[in-house]
Amino acid sequence: MKTLIIVAHPEIENSQTQEFLYQGAQAMNVEWHHLDAIAQLNVEAEQQLLRTADRIIFQFPLYWYAAPASLKDWEDTVLTRNFIYGDGRFPLANKELGIVVTTGRPLKDFRHGGTENITIDEMLASLRAVGHLAQMKILPAMPIAQFSYQQEAEQMQLLIDYQRYLTQPAPDSLANRETWFANQLPKFIAKLPAADQFTGQLIADTFAQNQADLEQLRDALNLLKEGEED
Amino acid sequence: MKTLIIVAHPEIENSQTQEFLYQGAQAMNVEWHHLDAIAQLNVEAEQQLLRTADRIIFQFPLYWYAAPASLKDWEDTVLTRNFIYGDGRFPLANKELGIVVTTGRPLKDFRHGGTENITIDEMLASLRAVGHLAQMKILPAMPIAQFSYQQEAEQMQLLIDYQRYLTQPAPDSLANRETWFANQLPKFIAKLPAADQFTGQLIADTFAQNQADLEQLRDALNLLKEGEED
Repeated sequence: MKTLIIVAHPEIENSQTQEFLYQGAQAMNVEWHHLDAIAQLNVEAEQQLLRTADRIIFQFPLYWYAAPASLKDWEDTVLTRNFIYGDGRFPLANKELGIVVTTGRPLKDFRHGGTENITIDEMLASLRAVGHLAQMKILPAMPIAQFSYQQEAEQMQLLIDYQRYLTQPAPDSLANRETWFANQLPKFIAKLPAADQFTGQLIADTFAQNQADLEQLRDALNLLKEGEED
Repeated sequence: MKTLIIVAHPEIENSQTQEFLYQGAQAMNVEWHHLDAIAQLNVEAEQQLLRTADRIIFQFPLYWYAAPASLKDWEDTVLTRNFIYGDGRFPLANKELGIVVTTGRPLKDFRHGGTENITIDEMLASLRAVGHLAQMKILPAMPIAQFSYQQEAEQMQLLIDYQRYLTQPAPDSLANRETWFANQLPKFIAKLPAADQFTGQLIADTFAQNQADLEQLRDALNLLKEGEED
């Protein structure tokens, strides 16, 4: 699966959050595409990028309850009608559309009656509508709030969640999570220093054992549900 | 009441609808402010325009279920946090916020389950949220669909509705409509050629008589509601 991250952030060099996400993305096999770094959009090249991706993720901070103007400008310029649905062809059909949205405000502010009086999902409705028209599969958005106030443990959790958002097959089910971790674990362990390889291997063995135990429990549960017909 | 129309339209010279609205606005005492014609935004000047207006109207065609990038760029540049709510001051508080949104699609497409699968109000939620934060009074949006397919009579009706949207006091009640028409009628008649002045005066007299009759009917209705207590 090829993931394309379309980043809109006019002041990315001052953003701790984006730097952190960038490092997380670097560890995965994904393409990081920063719009504000492009002096002049090449419509053909941008459309080609979209055609070759399987999962397309828009990533941006909230500027006045929406993406920064650079993303809207990219939409208005690159997403021609003819590209999205010309001649009954839908080149983005069945590709996945994800949104990673960052904010300096706490998430609890984004609800009716809250300080901001609008929900995250409401703010992203227009982007989702584009995906809907292009016949894409819409993934639940991933909001990241107040990154710089987070403890290190929270940030590490966020890193994993973000990496899963970039590459884990949808939907975000227990089975898909397990498979993703099983695939990632050997790569993580391979990066450990030699002295930690033994511990790493123990973790991998334990994880494999847990998976096997879980599988057995699931089978047992299914048997109970079916009743004792045999 | 001072009305400021902030127009965002990158191809305004090709837009019949905008030309029509422009003519309608010219007949009223309002300010037409076309963002795409501005090479470099002057933040101070833009903020000053907002400060001196009583009713601020955003007017634009739908580009991918939102305003064109030029309006978002204006928001990101002009609406600094410090301007909107710095130091507990809200310079836009109690001003009215209106939105005139044009589309080439029929309005019935904009509903859940329709072709576009998103409502007009949903698309405008982010703009309304800015107004809410700035403590503005939000007016119901005025959508204009498929202007070029309209018959002349519909277009004339639209012209009046638009002019009322620009200048009629809110809410759009029967009483406010009547007062608005009573104020406008002498101006319209004054513009008629000399040969039509007599007819114009007849219309004005009929309108005044209708208003008086309506007033009497209202009084009678109120008496009936109160019962015959005296």
